[in-house]
Amino acid sequence: MDRDTKHNKAMAKQKAAVDDAISKADIEQGVSVLLTGDGKGKTSSAFGMVIRALGYGQRVGIVQFIKGAQPSGEETYVKNHLPDVTLYQMGTGFTWDTQDRAGDIAAAERTWEQARAMLEDVTYDLVVLDELTYMLAFDYLPEQDVIGALTSRPAGQSVVVTGRGGGQALREAMDTVSEVKEIKHAYRAGIMARQGVDY
Amino acid sequence: MDRDTKHNKAMAKQKAAVDDAISKADIEQGVSVLLTGDGKGKTSSAFGMVIRALGYGQRVGIVQFIKGAQPSGEETYVKNHLPDVTLYQMGTGFTWDTQDRAGDIAAAERTWEQARAMLEDVTYDLVVLDELTYMLAFDYLPEQDVIGALTSRPAGQSVVVTGRGGGQALREAMDTVSEVKEIKHAYRAGIMARQGVDY
Repeated sequence: MDRDTKHNKAMAKQKAAVDDAISKADIEQGVSVLLTGDGKGKTSSAFGMVIRALGYGQRVGIVQFIKGAQPSGEETYVKNHLPDVTLYQMGTGFTWDTQDRAGDIAAAERTWEQARAMLEDVTYDLVVLDELTYMLAFDYLPEQDVIGALTSRPAGQSVVVTGRGGGQALREAMDTVSEVKEIKHAYRAGIMARQGVDY
Repeated sequence: MDRDTKHNKAMAKQKAAVDDAISKADIEQGVSVLLTGDGKGKTSSAFGMVIRALGYGQRVGIVQFIKGAQPSGEETYVKNHLPDVTLYQMGTGFTWDTQDRAGDIAAAERTWEQARAMLEDVTYDLVVLDELTYMLAFDYLPEQDVIGALTSRPAGQSVVVTGRGGGQALREAMDTVSEVKEIKHAYRAGIMARQGVDY
């Protein structure tokens, strides 16, 4: 058996063991998930969970920090096909421009108010806070307020936070943390971002 | 500035630099993406890309290896709301049972035939091959045939492969590879898998 096959089989066995351990857990409550790291797949994963939740008829709210200035496939799909999903985007109010720090903080705070309202609303089964970590990175939102709102949400509500970084306190506060590592990315070979995959 | 803030800011800057590099790439073609590793978020990410693709009116095909014996939110959603998406599941034909290796191989081959047909069909813009890596892990499908079909697909077609492991040859053949590392998982704290997030 070559090295790859050996590694592959180990991975498959690990999957089976984890599936077994998961089936033995017995606390039933909403979960908090942080998808961080520099690799591709964080925002798309959050939107895959939206689809899962909708498959069970759950109510979903999405707040996108940073995004919204440029159209994306997920935004178009939600707007055209998912009228029951609440989608709020920070959009053009945000610049990353250190010359307009006050304007950016105001945009972050305005957006966070939407997120906080969802985290207090027991009718939401799943809340997605896409790219929230960058608001913590730039100290645009107070970390303790954000973590407090995440951890004091309704017991049955799940929440997904995406974005690079995020900090140790956020990692500790979340139930599940995945770090998406970039092993390689098509753009490094000159391949353009692709509609339907990258945005 | 504390360590977390410093790390967070570095991550945010890296994101800006990567976004810039991506905008400079100039080869326009479908991309191949491998989502591997032991962390949560691989299948959900593939389904997020399905939503993105549908946002642009693209045609999508999904083949789920292993899955299908138990219902999932993404399956329910696709079946109830996305009649134009082709979904094929290996389902109950597969057992992981080494006592029935021949039966499992037959199920894998039957499922792979569906996948290969999509990879040869220029009308599909996006093909998702969920948990395909385990078929390579157990030598149920010949690696060179699988990689050959992936790399000779239509130029405009994108493909997403998920699952732990996968092997070096597959990694080399794909344009974008993300490894989803488990930092922690809710089940280790006894929290049950959650509808709408985990399945």
